[in-house]
Amino acid sequence: MPRRDPPRRQVAILAGGRGTRFWPLGRESRPKQLLALDGDDPRPLLLSTYERVAPLCDAGGPFVVASRALERPLRRLLPARARARLVLEPMPRDTAAAVALAAHAVRCDAGDAPTAVVPSDHHVAPDAGYRKALAAALSAAAAHDRIVVLGLPPTRPETGYGYVEAGAVVKRTPGGRLREVLRFVEKPDLARAKRYVRTGRHLWNLGTFVFRPSVFLDAFARRFPEGARALAPVLASRTWRRGLAAAFAKVPKRSVDHAVMEKERGLLVLEAKGFSWDDLGSFDAVLRHAALDAAGNALGRDGVALSASRCLVRSADGAPVVLVGVDDLLVVRTADATLVARRGRGEDVKKAVEALRASGRERLLR
Amino acid sequence: MPRRDPPRRQVAILAGGRGTRFWPLGRESRPKQLLALDGDDPRPLLLSTYERVAPLCDAGGPFVVASRALERPLRRLLPARARARLVLEPMPRDTAAAVALAAHAVRCDAGDAPTAVVPSDHHVAPDAGYRKALAAALSAAAAHDRIVVLGLPPTRPETGYGYVEAGAVVKRTPGGRLREVLRFVEKPDLARAKRYVRTGRHLWNLGTFVFRPSVFLDAFARRFPEGARALAPVLASRTWRRGLAAAFAKVPKRSVDHAVMEKERGLLVLEAKGFSWDDLGSFDAVLRHAALDAAGNALGRDGVALSASRCLVRSADGAPVVLVGVDDLLVVRTADATLVARRGRGEDVKKAVEALRASGRERLLR
Repeated sequence: MPRRDPPRRQVAILAGGRGTRFWPLGRESRPKQLLALDGDDPRPLLLSTYERVAPLCDAGGPFVVASRALERPLRRLLPARARARLVLEPMPRDTAAAVALAAHAVRCDAGDAPTAVVPSDHHVAPDAGYRKALAAALSAAAAHDRIVVLGLPPTRPETGYGYVEAGAVVKRTPGGRLREVLRFVEKPDLARAKRYVRTGRHLWNLGTFVFRPSVFLDAFARRFPEGARALAPVLASRTWRRGLAAAFAKVPKRSVDHAVMEKERGLLVLEAKGFSWDDLGSFDAVLRHAALDAAGNALGRDGVALSASRCLVRSADGAPVVLVGVDDLLVVRTADATLVARRGRGEDVKKAVEALRASGRERLLR
Repeated sequence: MPRRDPPRRQVAILAGGRGTRFWPLGRESRPKQLLALDGDDPRPLLLSTYERVAPLCDAGGPFVVASRALERPLRRLLPARARARLVLEPMPRDTAAAVALAAHAVRCDAGDAPTAVVPSDHHVAPDAGYRKALAAALSAAAAHDRIVVLGLPPTRPETGYGYVEAGAVVKRTPGGRLREVLRFVEKPDLARAKRYVRTGRHLWNLGTFVFRPSVFLDAFARRFPEGARALAPVLASRTWRRGLAAAFAKVPKRSVDHAVMEKERGLLVLEAKGFSWDDLGSFDAVLRHAALDAAGNALGRDGVALSASRCLVRSADGAPVVLVGVDDLLVVRTADATLVARRGRGEDVKKAVEALRASGRERLLR
């Protein structure tokens, strides 16, 4: 395939997440990527992501990989042109399978164009800074025929994130320095996370992988042969949607990080700059990006506070939430449930959801 | 009128309260006395009161004085026989007018029988102990032709209550000692309240006044002449319901304590025993009488707690309220609002309600 400069570029958005950490806002039928959780942005995270990366793509727009169960809300949410590039997973098989499917879908539709696979549910601002970094990563992936990871210098000792240890600088680009990947580190302890902030050798792993489809699929075949074997009929066919369910069901559930990236050699990382990023992993993270009143509350339209501070209020049904003399709370109300959690305990919402399931109220998770 | 022994007795329940301290459970259309706030008792406070005092009354049952606006819910709540003894106030005129009206209604229907005027929205337990005290007060009021106040030795230094300073013991009765009233004290400071608990000269004023109607109405005429003048056409007529609105509208709003009791001489107080009492003035008081789990939470049927302690949960619409890592909260959910207040700040719910009114959400108070 002949190279062009700048090459045609594609973006595939992974929207298969199903987490319960945003219950009661988030449900099985309305996972995080369909919620508006990023500051004052009224758009669901997936739509913000779609519109953020669309200017990088050709007229067909970004690809969106998501669960078949979400087809209907996705069609409602996304512009009409997105339908042709909707990649629907028959069942959840984690991200290794999802990225392989995305790479194949791009290859069939747009050839071996450099492609960025990006999460659908993160905070990014400003969009232009992010696009500049992603464009640099796309160019680098095309120029080097390597997988390029997007990294960002850590601004706080976050123990919940994944990190990339970066080595020698390969090249300087307008989007940041391109460096060698030495290794991946998952969720370090606080002491290590603090060191990472100081030394500048470790970058936050933004969960974004940039490659030519052929480059990724080659690595996928070498590093995750069980997955490649199961998906072989799909990856060999341009009419891959037929027969997808039978093949997909056989793919072992494995994350792309564990199955491919951590094993693969010669990866590059773009040390990005010019934008802020957050994985919005819980209501605590949401509060980091919300518009605050003088007392540090994010009350939204429906919160009323009487001597309350540092509280997040979300009311999905428009009913007011009145706070009296409370601090550091996450209060989330929907038509059928209320959550009241201490700030910093947002991660434990998952456990509360399990308690609800155990008490026979699964209905409230759907 | 000839005396009998034991005399025929009557009870009038004052159910005119309109407070907003139980918002969002309590509304203008559903004030505190129509809410179930007493421990595990599923009955609205007024119904519990009605059934508690009914055994003291004749076959007609207790009188109930309430706002005309509540006629419909009261008819639904109370037994059929209560209709004939419903005393409906055309508009709120505070308790001086309400007690005078109650006394006149009793007099017209049942003659000058000793009558206890009792609040409709307090915690009392056990019922039998309370009835014994009330019966003693009724006997004393009949025997002495005096107004008898119900008092209870304080068990904690409560600064939100009214107190009666009691003097010499006049008589010992099966329901407690009958003593002279020296004076009334409203909401003492903490130092005085602590002294009251120690010295035994001061009793909690239970807001219950026991008298023959003629005795009270005589005091009413002497101590509150403007009120008596305005009500004169009503108090002179056995068909008092006709023309009530015109006369009632002219009565100055005054509490029976300020307008009559604090000015009147020769009052007696029954130092009651054998039951516990609480005015249930706020959600904080409700928590005092609720059934608690091992962590001190009163979660009811719809609360789910993950490491939460000393919290009160009330869900009026059956939607679950999930607590994660929080302590000392009052969380109250209805179909159209949520309250989250720090324990001990229950009194400030009133202020929050005013904030709602100021923000144009009066709808939520109705």
